[in-house]
Amino acid sequence: MDTNNLLQQVAFIKEIDKLKYIQRRTKLFNSDRHENDAEHSWHLAVMALVLAEHSDKPIDVLKVVKMVLIHDLVEIDAGDTFIYDTTKNHTNTEEELLAAKRIFGLLPEAQAQDFIAVWEEFEEGSTDEAKFARAMDRFEPLLQNSSNNGGTWAEFNVEYHTVYDKKKAIANGSTSIWNYAERLLEESVEKGILRRDSL
Amino acid sequence: MDTNNLLQQVAFIKEIDKLKYIQRRTKLFNSDRHENDAEHSWHLAVMALVLAEHSDKPIDVLKVVKMVLIHDLVEIDAGDTFIYDTTKNHTNTEEELLAAKRIFGLLPEAQAQDFIAVWEEFEEGSTDEAKFARAMDRFEPLLQNSSNNGGTWAEFNVEYHTVYDKKKAIANGSTSIWNYAERLLEESVEKGILRRDSL
Repeated sequence: MDTNNLLQQVAFIKEIDKLKYIQRRTKLFNSDRHENDAEHSWHLAVMALVLAEHSDKPIDVLKVVKMVLIHDLVEIDAGDTFIYDTTKNHTNTEEELLAAKRIFGLLPEAQAQDFIAVWEEFEEGSTDEAKFARAMDRFEPLLQNSSNNGGTWAEFNVEYHTVYDKKKAIANGSTSIWNYAERLLEESVEKGILRRDSL
Repeated sequence: MDTNNLLQQVAFIKEIDKLKYIQRRTKLFNSDRHENDAEHSWHLAVMALVLAEHSDKPIDVLKVVKMVLIHDLVEIDAGDTFIYDTTKNHTNTEEELLAAKRIFGLLPEAQAQDFIAVWEEFEEGSTDEAKFARAMDRFEPLLQNSSNNGGTWAEFNVEYHTVYDKKKAIANGSTSIWNYAERLLEESVEKGILRRDSL
């Protein structure tokens, strides 16, 4: 055994507890209670296990699960960026990269490099695993908002086409989930919980 | 694609949101805020990824992660049983089995059977994957209590030998983590946050 590795790993395990304090804008299903990043990451991981058969391409499910479990850890330092916040940069920021280096850097070096690479792969979104992981990340709040009277769409008065453009990333991972998602968006407009302006 | 499968899977994904409301007795690191089952499950899954190298036996990491992600879902119906509660039965109860059948039963049949089998494997604890998954489940609250001034040990006045007997399950999965855990328990006694009676 490598005791030194274990001590570094325990330091990381303690540090990431802070993810449980990072509040998201979205709320739990049929609820007024905000979701935190740890709960969100857990939910995406179970979704990845359950929905893997819908991926358009063959995927390494363990890698997808790893991606979604750790994808938000950088928010411990960098904070949550609301997807419909138009005043903030949503690309992989310098601040997030510093956060990744600090947080994953608590791990033994080879493991730190592996986790940073997996996080970067998720952020870039070009591999089949990253596409499916990102589809999960877009799909969960869609399910939440559509069962929460419009949730953040209603709260922040977000318009259908804006939501549609963000959700379209689901199609990169799964045609069948995207077909279902499009239907949910359409139904949300019909129910009056998502505003659609004529273009 | 199988639309019917997807509809059943979405029903399951919505139902398991309730795990976020199940409060555990243990608290977050250095905190007075109780942990919920979804946060706990997320933490165990990341721990399994990070600590897999310490397993005494070769393990299928995806299976371990799957086990810890879903191991507490039955508590949505059956509630959390505190590990040091001596008045309650801690074996795989009839109530838990009914809960597993109802909750996993929301999934398409083959998937439901697979998840129930994985949950039962975790509960039985006899395969190498189940032993390592159960080691994670014992190790997280040990880390929490030892960094929380004794946490539930102090709050419920639990004695060292009782804690030791429960934690010994860690040794079934990993000798190196168990060596570290034994040391943490010893240190907790020395710090006065875990009471040890002479036998």
